[in-house]
Amino acid sequence: MRIGILNSGGDCPGLNAVIHGVVGAASQLGWEVIGFKDGFEGLLPPGDYKVLKPQDTLGILKLGGTILGTTNKGHFAAKVGKGDIAEVPADIVAKAKRTMDQLEIRALVIVGGDGSLTTGLQLYREGWPVIGVPKTIDNDLRATAMTFGFDSAVSTVVDGLDRLHTTAESHKRIMVLEVMGRHAGWIALWGGIAGGADVILLPEIPFDTEKVAEFIKNRDSQGHHSTLVVVAEGAHLPDGELATIAENAGGEVRLGGIGDIIARRLESLTGKETRSCTLGHLQRGGAPTALDRILGTRFGVMAVKLAEEGRFGRMVSYQAYHVDSVPIEEAVNQLRLVEPDGEMVKAAKAVGICLGD
Amino acid sequence: MRIGILNSGGDCPGLNAVIHGVVGAASQLGWEVIGFKDGFEGLLPPGDYKVLKPQDTLGILKLGGTILGTTNKGHFAAKVGKGDIAEVPADIVAKAKRTMDQLEIRALVIVGGDGSLTTGLQLYREGWPVIGVPKTIDNDLRATAMTFGFDSAVSTVVDGLDRLHTTAESHKRIMVLEVMGRHAGWIALWGGIAGGADVILLPEIPFDTEKVAEFIKNRDSQGHHSTLVVVAEGAHLPDGELATIAENAGGEVRLGGIGDIIARRLESLTGKETRSCTLGHLQRGGAPTALDRILGTRFGVMAVKLAEEGRFGRMVSYQAYHVDSVPIEEAVNQLRLVEPDGEMVKAAKAVGICLGD
Amino acid sequence: MRIGILNSGGDCPGLNAVIHGVVGAASQLGWEVIGFKDGFEGLLPPGDYKVLKPQDTLGILKLGGTILGTTNKGHFAAKVGKGDIAEVPADIVAKAKRTMDQLEIRALVIVGGDGSLTTGLQLYREGWPVIGVPKTIDNDLRATAMTFGFDSAVSTVVDGLDRLHTTAESHKRIMVLEVMGRHAGWIALWGGIAGGADVILLPEIPFDTEKVAEFIKNRDSQGHHSTLVVVAEGAHLPDGELATIAENAGGEVRLGGIGDIIARRLESLTGKETRSCTLGHLQRGGAPTALDRILGTRFGVMAVKLAEEGRFGRMVSYQAYHVDSVPIEEAVNQLRLVEPDGEMVKAAKAVGICLGD
Amino acid sequence: MRIGILNSGGDCPGLNAVIHGVVGAASQLGWEVIGFKDGFEGLLPPGDYKVLKPQDTLGILKLGGTILGTTNKGHFAAKVGKGDIAEVPADIVAKAKRTMDQLEIRALVIVGGDGSLTTGLQLYREGWPVIGVPKTIDNDLRATAMTFGFDSAVSTVVDGLDRLHTTAESHKRIMVLEVMGRHAGWIALWGGIAGGADVILLPEIPFDTEKVAEFIKNRDSQGHHSTLVVVAEGAHLPDGELATIAENAGGEVRLGGIGDIIARRLESLTGKETRSCTLGHLQRGGAPTALDRILGTRFGVMAVKLAEEGRFGRMVSYQAYHVDSVPIEEAVNQLRLVEPDGEMVKAAKAVGICLGD
Repeated sequence: MRIGILNSGGDCPGLNAVIHGVVGAASQLGWEVIGFKDGFEGLLPPGDYKVLKPQDTLGILKLGGTILGTTNKGHFAAKVGKGDIAEVPADIVAKAKRTMDQLEIRALVIVGGDGSLTTGLQLYREGWPVIGVPKTIDNDLRATAMTFGFDSAVSTVVDGLDRLHTTAESHKRIMVLEVMGRHAGWIALWGGIAGGADVILLPEIPFDTEKVAEFIKNRDSQGHHSTLVVVAEGAHLPDGELATIAENAGGEVRLGGIGDIIARRLESLTGKETRSCTLGHLQRGGAPTALDRILGTRFGVMAVKLAEEGRFGRMVSYQAYHVDSVPIEEAVNQLRLVEPDGEMVKAAKAVGICLGD
Repeated sequence: MRIGILNSGGDCPGLNAVIHGVVGAASQLGWEVIGFKDGFEGLLPPGDYKVLKPQDTLGILKLGGTILGTTNKGHFAAKVGKGDIAEVPADIVAKAKRTMDQLEIRALVIVGGDGSLTTGLQLYREGWPVIGVPKTIDNDLRATAMTFGFDSAVSTVVDGLDRLHTTAESHKRIMVLEVMGRHAGWIALWGGIAGGADVILLPEIPFDTEKVAEFIKNRDSQGHHSTLVVVAEGAHLPDGELATIAENAGGEVRLGGIGDIIARRLESLTGKETRSCTLGHLQRGGAPTALDRILGTRFGVMAVKLAEEGRFGRMVSYQAYHVDSVPIEEAVNQLRLVEPDGEMVKAAKAVGICLGD
Repeated sequence: MRIGILNSGGDCPGLNAVIHGVVGAASQLGWEVIGFKDGFEGLLPPGDYKVLKPQDTLGILKLGGTILGTTNKGHFAAKVGKGDIAEVPADIVAKAKRTMDQLEIRALVIVGGDGSLTTGLQLYREGWPVIGVPKTIDNDLRATAMTFGFDSAVSTVVDGLDRLHTTAESHKRIMVLEVMGRHAGWIALWGGIAGGADVILLPEIPFDTEKVAEFIKNRDSQGHHSTLVVVAEGAHLPDGELATIAENAGGEVRLGGIGDIIARRLESLTGKETRSCTLGHLQRGGAPTALDRILGTRFGVMAVKLAEEGRFGRMVSYQAYHVDSVPIEEAVNQLRLVEPDGEMVKAAKAVGICLGD
Repeated sequence: MRIGILNSGGDCPGLNAVIHGVVGAASQLGWEVIGFKDGFEGLLPPGDYKVLKPQDTLGILKLGGTILGTTNKGHFAAKVGKGDIAEVPADIVAKAKRTMDQLEIRALVIVGGDGSLTTGLQLYREGWPVIGVPKTIDNDLRATAMTFGFDSAVSTVVDGLDRLHTTAESHKRIMVLEVMGRHAGWIALWGGIAGGADVILLPEIPFDTEKVAEFIKNRDSQGHHSTLVVVAEGAHLPDGELATIAENAGGEVRLGGIGDIIARRLESLTGKETRSCTLGHLQRGGAPTALDRILGTRFGVMAVKLAEEGRFGRMVSYQAYHVDSVPIEEAVNQLRLVEPDGEMVKAAKAVGICLGD
């Protein structure tokens, strides 16, 4: 018996733990595991892959990235945008299928995000023995209560805030940290609460920069002369405000991301020295946290169990502390966003954090 | 309105996050918080305490320990053993009550383990406005799915295993790491899975050292020349085996804890160079993880909410991702142990980890 | 006997260790230490300061920032630029002197960079009992072989590279990391060598982006599909190249710092996916490394010794593993830059690192 | 041209950096590198080795241990004790020589401590092209101002002290941390100063436990209720004191290392709750610090340079910030111990640290 595994889409801490889980569990069953390289691309003839034995996964739990490589481009990329998802062309599928057949792959574990799982769903519908493992560092998939990588990203944010905190204090500055989260603000919200942020700005909660400035001036008058602001990359200024900024700057403005924009706006509104910092790719790298290693391993184990039971077209999920599975078609494109009146937002507000609303 | 908070029992990462949560939430309500020092001792006249304002909790999220101090000794220590729990003497309670009255404390948040919450229960039954926050680094309380400190302890174990891993590999050794867990093996189990341990020995699962030795010899014959063993401090050798070890050693044996004992036994049974290491108090210190900071903060927020609603005699708990509460009397002395056929044990076995059974 | 201490200029890991060293050593002599807040500003009447006792410095060794606060603005700021250094106006000096006299400060320890020490020199020449402690995270002061903060900044760079390394590998990308170093490239050079960078670009070594692109294409052809580039913020493109980039982009280009510029240029020249990341203020924060804590402590101890011996107008320095001192006037404005044919550059080239020349 | 490299003796952070430096520099010269496994053992016919290309060293800078394996046992082990060093038997040398000849190894880089370099010296005298790289985590070799691994070990000690600090504070305890250093106390001294220890006990400085107890009681009376003690494993109680302890304990005493002994003694003398912790092998593992990676890399580069220049029988050394070399015979068995009146000891005393003398 031989099964395949591939990683697809963006890098995420814990990918190697999933590989470790799949190889470990398969090996206990006496199965062989084929790791395809660089996402689906490794399936194209003549096939780019390697046999994965337990000794090949020795020491990989602690490594970021993936020993298989991954890509968010290539021949299989399902474009997700405005509701349309491009199908993978029939000739590409046919070529890849030949590799599957030649290698006698009896189950294919696809570790990927929404786009990659949509491709997986297409392949499953065309008869492939597909098993999905969800990968979203933003932890924004409705079908699973937790995804690996999120805890590591939050930890990186918290480490960043811990660093900025003493600098902000020493210089009585506003420090703005831009973090990941294009649609969902979970990383900003969790990271901000754990890292002692004073202001957290999210894509899901429209905010008013002037209210934030007022909040900061109030802090100042109470003797808190520094302020830490966390902003998700997907947070956006109210309509018109960006234009105002550009206008004030006489058109000469050379802005970076939203963190930079917020920083300039707050500096101008409060008169306080303000600096911004963008974590960017640092959030995707580094050794995964204990939690992400465990979650990844358990996801890998469940993927092999699904293969053993012949339950294809399903995606591993985590619900109420148990690892289980759901049909892939029920899982894709179902985002879980921060609810403006949810428990975590309420907790943030309860300790006095400003969300700008 | 004025409320009190105290920490009681052993040190645990996240205690300061609870204080941060309580002070932050109380401050939003316009309440004053009194922090009693060194557990219940701070309640004894003339009272050893300080007023906690938000600026006093600035930067404490990232600190281990507790800014209030704690103790697992003193006048209030409820001895837990063989089912008997000593009541706090009436005169001590009366004295402490006087401090409560003089300071007009309307709610007392007790952050403590089984013993301290048992004392809390006694005080509640005598009419005190007690609110409990569970503190067990072992995460072994049935009434809450998670407690703060556990994730930090597991992270310390994983860091230790990451360090020992390369040494074990380089020297082809068996390395034994003894970790916390007197009754429950959760830290060993989670830490072991995340840290890539090959063998995990728990209090809940009787193990056979010879089976473990056999497992290691098997690994050797397959080309895996190093082995990482995690053993919970509460794990115990089968009856008689300790005597055998002492006898073999001609009575001269000078043994440390269980980790040391297991190391010597495995060295003798396998003929392989073996070293042991005990993490001890390193597991209780250090900056709490993001998760523990958030959980602690949320627990603190909920404690204030219970105070606001006048729901005394209850303990904060975490269930299905929500922070809620349960009656203290239903919570104390209800341990949640590792189930030998539970999901985590199965996952460990699925990836080939030996549990010695 | 009473002495004063102040921090001036930008934040730097190890500032608290200097304070710890000064307070510890002064306390052993039975002296009192006054810590002035926010740089020289704390000297202005009525004086903003606190008495520092050993218990006030408990636990500060591990903290970034400074418990005294600092500023690189204010009434004393010596503008360093084009060789001109502004003197502090006589009325400001006179005011500050009054505070010195009222508090009977017998020695003033100034922990600062070139600008602040120039101010210190002016004050010394006007009769103040000034002792300087050099602070430059860039480690670019000729008069001392090492300054605290540098090792911590390098460690942060290495941690960043370790994170980017796995991501670069997984995605076969070029990753560009922009680090501190406006005039001197030491942080980039040390960080790059320790973090396994493939390319290091410095202010001191003119580089040719096309040579770098050639180097990367060569790597690709040898099977190394990812490349890590470290660039110091003060590194600069050859004349004309920036204009070319803007032109190619049709004038629409919205560029960030040099890291971003290099990334776009390399992406365009090699056709490889490229990402950039700027560490920024993350390099100034966080717990100082062991080395920086020791160096800071030793600097503080020496400052007190100089005060004891009445040797004013001198700056603490580190030479050949010994902490010593030099006249401030010989120390300021004497930069130590990376020598293009120095030992470290040669070592980098010896292991195949490209410096773009 | 082909050169060999082997690691011998105990594990040490930075070994992989040396390998990285040797392979990188050799590759620039177009040379091939053979890595022998498990120390000198890999030289025995048929030879256990692998060809090391640059891609084999990708990502190893950040790994503890050594990718080549090492051993402090085996056929070549030079027993160092009481001034006698065992020669390697002639037949073993002859066998190993055959491997050298067959593989046409033109230079052999031996990365090892005193024992291994003594073996290296023997081989050099018998005509082998030996180049030594010093490896001593204790940094106690007179011939070089610094050795890789030391900074990493000190960092681990500091991390341990940071963890114990908050626990000690919270519980008002004495915490004793036993660290490496059988003959030289550098790790304890540096780690203790950087980690904020209150007491440091070294092999080189005879101490009086009662003086230490007095110091702690004094602290208590001044309001410092917790004390951090660092003790090097090679520190020893004054004659007779151990007997007293055993006697007091009625012969039933079951003691661990010196840390444990000191802890019991201080608990008995001060009446304060005391706990001890032994770092052990944790100090040898983990990612090397930036400094150790750089030093290791530079040592590797110099080893190749010595090979290029045909300067055999020499050991790489570090002096006054330059990497240079010395004859192996002048380097072995020349320890550099902590001088009781040296600068570092004086600095420790200056800030009020007790050394027990």
